[in-house]
Amino acid sequence: MPQVVPVILCGGAGTRLWPESRDHFPKPFLSIDGKQSIFRATLDRLTPVGAAADSRPIVITNEALRFLVLEELDRAGLEGDILLEPVRRDTGAAIAAATSFALSRHGDCVIALFPSDHHIGKPAAFMDAVGEAAAAAEQGYIVTLGIKPREPSTAYGYIRPGPRLNQTSDVLRAEQFVEKPDRATAERYIAEGYLWNGGMFVGRAETLKDELQARQPAIMAAVAASVRDAKTDGAFVRLDPTAFAASPQISFDRGIMEATERAAVLPVDLDWSDIGAWDAVWNTSQRDQDGNATRGRVVTADTFNSVLRAERALVTVIGMDNVIVVETGDAVLVAPMTRAQDVRELVERLRADKRPEAAALPRMLRPWGHYEGKDAGERYQVKRITVKPGGRLSLQKHYHRSEHWVVVRGTAQVTINDKVQIVHENQSTYIPIGAVHRLENPGLIPLELIEVQVGSYLEEDDIIRISDDYGR
Amino acid sequence: MPQVVPVILCGGAGTRLWPESRDHFPKPFLSIDGKQSIFRATLDRLTPVGAAADSRPIVITNEALRFLVLEELDRAGLEGDILLEPVRRDTGAAIAAATSFALSRHGDCVIALFPSDHHIGKPAAFMDAVGEAAAAAEQGYIVTLGIKPREPSTAYGYIRPGPRLNQTSDVLRAEQFVEKPDRATAERYIAEGYLWNGGMFVGRAETLKDELQARQPAIMAAVAASVRDAKTDGAFVRLDPTAFAASPQISFDRGIMEATERAAVLPVDLDWSDIGAWDAVWNTSQRDQDGNATRGRVVTADTFNSVLRAERALVTVIGMDNVIVVETGDAVLVAPMTRAQDVRELVERLRADKRPEAAALPRMLRPWGHYEGKDAGERYQVKRITVKPGGRLSLQKHYHRSEHWVVVRGTAQVTINDKVQIVHENQSTYIPIGAVHRLENPGLIPLELIEVQVGSYLEEDDIIRISDDYGR
Repeated sequence: MPQVVPVILCGGAGTRLWPESRDHFPKPFLSIDGKQSIFRATLDRLTPVGAAADSRPIVITNEALRFLVLEELDRAGLEGDILLEPVRRDTGAAIAAATSFALSRHGDCVIALFPSDHHIGKPAAFMDAVGEAAAAAEQGYIVTLGIKPREPSTAYGYIRPGPRLNQTSDVLRAEQFVEKPDRATAERYIAEGYLWNGGMFVGRAETLKDELQARQPAIMAAVAASVRDAKTDGAFVRLDPTAFAASPQISFDRGIMEATERAAVLPVDLDWSDIGAWDAVWNTSQRDQDGNATRGRVVTADTFNSVLRAERALVTVIGMDNVIVVETGDAVLVAPMTRAQDVRELVERLRADKRPEAAALPRMLRPWGHYEGKDAGERYQVKRITVKPGGRLSLQKHYHRSEHWVVVRGTAQVTINDKVQIVHENQSTYIPIGAVHRLENPGLIPLELIEVQVGSYLEEDDIIRISDDYGR
Repeated sequence: MPQVVPVILCGGAGTRLWPESRDHFPKPFLSIDGKQSIFRATLDRLTPVGAAADSRPIVITNEALRFLVLEELDRAGLEGDILLEPVRRDTGAAIAAATSFALSRHGDCVIALFPSDHHIGKPAAFMDAVGEAAAAAEQGYIVTLGIKPREPSTAYGYIRPGPRLNQTSDVLRAEQFVEKPDRATAERYIAEGYLWNGGMFVGRAETLKDELQARQPAIMAAVAASVRDAKTDGAFVRLDPTAFAASPQISFDRGIMEATERAAVLPVDLDWSDIGAWDAVWNTSQRDQDGNATRGRVVTADTFNSVLRAERALVTVIGMDNVIVVETGDAVLVAPMTRAQDVRELVERLRADKRPEAAALPRMLRPWGHYEGKDAGERYQVKRITVKPGGRLSLQKHYHRSEHWVVVRGTAQVTINDKVQIVHENQSTYIPIGAVHRLENPGLIPLELIEVQVGSYLEEDDIIRISDDYGR
């Protein structure tokens, strides 16, 4: 196999998986099985690809998701390059950025591009397919993995396959890339042997660059400049905002694959799903003897073929068939499985009503750890704060609140104005209004503390940062 | 109207209204409309009855519910006598106790007995009915309010009415009291003009005593002794446990009404419901234009004729008809309306599995106020404690935990060993393991504090009470 650099596209989304998926915690970071995130499964699946060539993954994401991505890489024990798009310019620009960055970092290589939020039930077949596609990519083709359709879905684009590239390869010419069809057209496509387009592409970096320059010169020029002028900050590569924003907004499928002469497709059977909505979660999950895909504390009676997920509460269901019940502490969704797609519209209503449950989960992830609101009243709120070993919050102050900290696990180092103190489990400290303070975990186990904030204004924007390890 | 003493039977129950109804917070204390409890509505409905005769209500309940009852009386601005049954001996013994107590406190009077957990939509008609029943009671009858059936229900006992007692009264002879019938029998009963038995009785105390002595001498002897030897503790009257336990266990309907010659029935149309299950809640609730009875933060799409109740979370429902969705923070119930009765069986399973959600709500009511768990970890937990003005917790100590208290509203008086201190809003204090301590609210507004407990054992039974205002 030639040197293959895995590229993971992580743009967020996943509205139809609300309430588990939120703007600030989108689909790639959900865990379907309760064990690992979809993103992590993607990484694990791709690691052998990269390991064979001693390369490191490139992730394309944005500012809002950067610490989530970094944490997934850390947990997987991987180092990678995390490209941050300053604005959204669709997959054309994203893939151009990966191409441009890969060329500058690795020289010519094969890059294998994958969404971060898909399920693949047959990882060995996937590995084989990537190897076969990489071989064809070496020959100058841009190879799409073309998924053998299970049904005449109207949710995916389709690819019309042509003849084999050569006698020794299973890779076919890709004759046509078509948009999401209506039902009748989808049925015709299936009858005619079309394949689903799952957004997975393998190509040589030089090939991709050539095709981008030829077919989408404005994208390539803008994005190449944004990579050249990028600012590197640890693992983060911040693409130049002005240059990147100048790129046209067009998908890679439409901008390149529909135009190029080098399009190829490898038919694959990977037990693939884009996990688009709760019915897809049911499809890809292990199910119990009643056909229920459950997670968390769920008790059922006469309930079958349902998705039942409890995060905080005890979820009980009597006498239902084919339903979705998802509980996340701050929200509950109940719907028939047949209405799984309509969750999007519901969430759009919640957004329009500015309901906080549309945007964020109760647990807020931060580069130093996470916090979660536990109680709130008129002039106070209570949070549990968890700081990773070595984690350090910004040096900060508040104009409108004082804070009581009770350490309940681990050891805190607390700076208040000029004084630095160690606060142990079962000890507390007090931060007066206006005091410059900092919390850090100097220890080897996570630090947990209960923070009671008291004041007349308790929002997150009353944090005056004086200095921050994480460039915020 | 003669002197009428209202008697309220409050024995708990309401399993089918789980998860809002719990063993420690049963049906009478639920609020269907979010404004007042069913118990309070019962009190308000009966207040004119008692007020007319300048009497005070008698409530028959048990130890576990006594502070809930006392609080309802307090909130209604009423004084009453709260008889506490040491064990359950069915309505025969309960009504014997009320009769015996009323005679000793008020002398002969008319007593009007009502369950504490029923809905009556026509309070004026109810008042008229009680007046008419009381007039017949003066003549020596025991008058049941007989509800005109809406349907051939199998959930209630029935009463066969006879001729009028006399030409000027609408009260009829009650010819027969029958148990809950099967469907076919219920249909026949309705065709023959039977009435529902809603457990509401009006009779002179002397009449009741005579009939109890004649028909159930063992009950009357045991219960009269338990009243004679009762211990009074403020509003609470603790019936003597040994004497009371000697009473046979039989319902008033079966033990007296089926046997007595003085049984009468007044047909009434009161828009009555025993609010037995969630479908009855739907029936008695105000509904929106989609036919949904909602409470709390509920968002629906294409959802109709459902009971949708949110206590803590945002509850969202898409495309459902005739369903029950009830959320209480720690639990969620989802079921079709047609399975409303089956909630009982579900809760029995939860009880058998010793799930805490079967027994208690997150908010625990205490005579001094209430507390609620807000967070818990391996060696700590966080509670919000609310103390009423003038409320005072027991003088106590713990062997296995220390406590950090942060006052977030009001003012606390805190005793730690020999030291008494005032702790204001935004101040904190610390209770070391083993320290004898007490918390009280000396102020005029509720005291709220956040308690962080740290230790290796954090259960409620590690409270060593040295002294307590509430006789616990």
